[in-house]
Amino acid sequence: MSSPVDEPGQAVAHPHGRTGFSRRTLLGAAGVGAAVAGAAGAGVLAGRASAADTAAAQLQAPVPFRGRHQAGIVTPAQDRMHFAAFDVTTEDRDEVVAMLREWTQMAERMTRGEETTEGGAVGLNPYAPPTDTGEALGLPASQLTLTIGFGPSFFGTDARPRFGLRGQRPALLKDLPRFPNETMDPARSGGDICIQACANDPQVAVHAVRNLSRVAFGTAAVRYSQLGFGRTSSTTRDQTTPRNLFGFKDGTNNVKAEDTDILDKQVWVADGDGPNWLTGGSYLVARRIRMRIEQWDRTTLLEQERVIGRTKGSGAPIGLADEFEPLNLDAIDGDGEPLIDPLAHVRLAAPESNHGAEMLRRGYNFTDGTDGFGHLDAGLFFIAFVRNPETQFIPVQAELARRDLLNEYITHTGSAVFAVPPGIPDGDRDAYWGSTLFG
Amino acid sequence: MSSPVDEPGQAVAHPHGRTGFSRRTLLGAAGVGAAVAGAAGAGVLAGRASAADTAAAQLQAPVPFRGRHQAGIVTPAQDRMHFAAFDVTTEDRDEVVAMLREWTQMAERMTRGEETTEGGAVGLNPYAPPTDTGEALGLPASQLTLTIGFGPSFFGTDARPRFGLRGQRPALLKDLPRFPNETMDPARSGGDICIQACANDPQVAVHAVRNLSRVAFGTAAVRYSQLGFGRTSSTTRDQTTPRNLFGFKDGTNNVKAEDTDILDKQVWVADGDGPNWLTGGSYLVARRIRMRIEQWDRTTLLEQERVIGRTKGSGAPIGLADEFEPLNLDAIDGDGEPLIDPLAHVRLAAPESNHGAEMLRRGYNFTDGTDGFGHLDAGLFFIAFVRNPETQFIPVQAELARRDLLNEYITHTGSAVFAVPPGIPDGDRDAYWGSTLFG
Repeated sequence: MSSPVDEPGQAVAHPHGRTGFSRRTLLGAAGVGAAVAGAAGAGVLAGRASAADTAAAQLQAPVPFRGRHQAGIVTPAQDRMHFAAFDVTTEDRDEVVAMLREWTQMAERMTRGEETTEGGAVGLNPYAPPTDTGEALGLPASQLTLTIGFGPSFFGTDARPRFGLRGQRPALLKDLPRFPNETMDPARSGGDICIQACANDPQVAVHAVRNLSRVAFGTAAVRYSQLGFGRTSSTTRDQTTPRNLFGFKDGTNNVKAEDTDILDKQVWVADGDGPNWLTGGSYLVARRIRMRIEQWDRTTLLEQERVIGRTKGSGAPIGLADEFEPLNLDAIDGDGEPLIDPLAHVRLAAPESNHGAEMLRRGYNFTDGTDGFGHLDAGLFFIAFVRNPETQFIPVQAELARRDLLNEYITHTGSAVFAVPPGIPDGDRDAYWGSTLFG
Repeated sequence: MSSPVDEPGQAVAHPHGRTGFSRRTLLGAAGVGAAVAGAAGAGVLAGRASAADTAAAQLQAPVPFRGRHQAGIVTPAQDRMHFAAFDVTTEDRDEVVAMLREWTQMAERMTRGEETTEGGAVGLNPYAPPTDTGEALGLPASQLTLTIGFGPSFFGTDARPRFGLRGQRPALLKDLPRFPNETMDPARSGGDICIQACANDPQVAVHAVRNLSRVAFGTAAVRYSQLGFGRTSSTTRDQTTPRNLFGFKDGTNNVKAEDTDILDKQVWVADGDGPNWLTGGSYLVARRIRMRIEQWDRTTLLEQERVIGRTKGSGAPIGLADEFEPLNLDAIDGDGEPLIDPLAHVRLAAPESNHGAEMLRRGYNFTDGTDGFGHLDAGLFFIAFVRNPETQFIPVQAELARRDLLNEYITHTGSAVFAVPPGIPDGDRDAYWGSTLFG
């Protein structure tokens, strides 16, 4: 049997008589059928390059890398995620800039579904290491987005600045304070740089992080990495709301791409907010939240719904029928008792309870093996994008950590915050990830 | 906005005026479009229940749970896996049998895309814990298969038999010997019972293991669990060969479902092979193989191809053009040197080098965060099904562990072997997982 991706397509000339492949030519040769089959991972679709596959093929399509904002924030939340935090291991500014330039080029290519360099996986020069690791050969772009952020430690301190970035650290970019109910693992917290890789095929997201890590050798090293297998938020109105590992629909009231006024108010850093280099960017807050799913699973449905404040089946606020009916925190039952518990999660997290603070959430379910005590080490890798951590994430989390009924079933085990620079403009060949900062 | 899965479909009567949902009624209401969208995780397909989606919908369809053999062996390899090993924590045979009976009922339902019990996730009785954890509500069956196996420790020893199973342990079911080049973690090895959950949606596989673990409370506890994000084998001829994290196509010469003669010879335990209860079953060998991907990535393409014995781009044997051309281990180049290195992986693993021994491989790529030294903890969770570990897996692995060029780039960190009972016959309501053993 011959597989569609074996055909060389537009072969790349090779000094040693080999045939070079690029992910693009592979896809060009294989067509939509193979693209769908590749990402869906099964061959039942191969060869069916009919209109029938057009809809499914959208999930395999590229997401534009360039724009006013980085992709991976309001992009329709992809199914899978690989998040990595890096420690920069050099003190040399030029090395950092060189890495960021190379990362940018690679990232733009990978988000198009291409190898990191033309013909990189199968080597234009067989006497050199391949410049792409190859495990995404034959796989489509899968809506891959790569989003970069810089942590507080990247800028050093006033006493010991790093990379000549003294004075460039946004005042709002600070390690998050300690909250109650945390079991923080320093090895899963912080980081100089983060890369959020999201895609509909996890192999594509893993490939991207692995290749960025590969070329960072000597300049930056992976501090921690987290795989997320299932999205827990929608970021556009046409996405159905997914469920978290408590079995509840999560993120019903998430800020969505269509809410452009809210995005401007709550997500995008505006002119005058902070250092100019961050205008059009955002802040990424990451929290690894371990869920005590075994305890949760032994709780009655009524108690689960009381804790969350929503109905498990439909996702509707308690007492209502439709998921998207507005929360009415004042609603009472026949006895005059509040329908939504005073300490329910949705009440405490609602904008109405937090001076209007909202966040664009983009978290993922995870399962990282076991905890050694017979339990799955499972939970939610929470990611939110906010314009101002100090008025949005921190006060909301402070209140949740103190009062939320959910606290009996969760503990936060990792914490990080990053300043996410703006997008790279179309056509600007000099721009790179961080060029507004280093510029 | 209202999502298709919000519609109650055929509502289940509820004593408290609630509406019960089952995964089946949800899907019935939502149709194929939502099934595809649910599994693919994006709403772009919702509502397009046209013939267009039929092909993609196959990836969401159920796989029959019953049959002569368990599903999940020759079933077309699904994209994602959650593998779990359990320690049985009771000494009471009846409790074990009760758990296996309950597991079987739940498993059969879940593989159909249903909740573990009718209306289980949203609770027919809100004053009790839900009998399904709910995170798979609205998701289709996604070709979920659940495959059970029993480890050597399950049977105890002659001196201390367990569960009255003395004399039932197959002679071939023994912990694997130590091989060179291992860094075994006992916490990732062994186990009394294994469950291999494979599906095209990882949330469906995780949900299945989590619910089996949930009801096992007091009887069995998770010893270790492994998520695999990308399949590394095809098990049918119409599947394209996927790539492992070395960037090479893996499993080109795998035993496939169509090779029924080879399956009978190499995979299925036959009458007379061992205890009768295992006839129609198999042995599952699991090896967690950590890949030193950073070292590999610094190796030249020529060296990578020499180590593997195949061309990276096409997957063809070195010197040939097509992936599926037969390996010719005697082929020489113009200087009379073997085209495939004497210690290349494909040579040492080939049936011709191993008295004809073959295995049905069903492994998955994994990335479990970092190793704390700046590297991704990545590799291959190798799974193989064999008729006889002593003549198939053990001698092949002994040779590989001693001589394979790949050893420079891998180390085995987990090991387990399980006896996999036969399938549960159609229509037999008394049969359950292990009933041929406990009978």
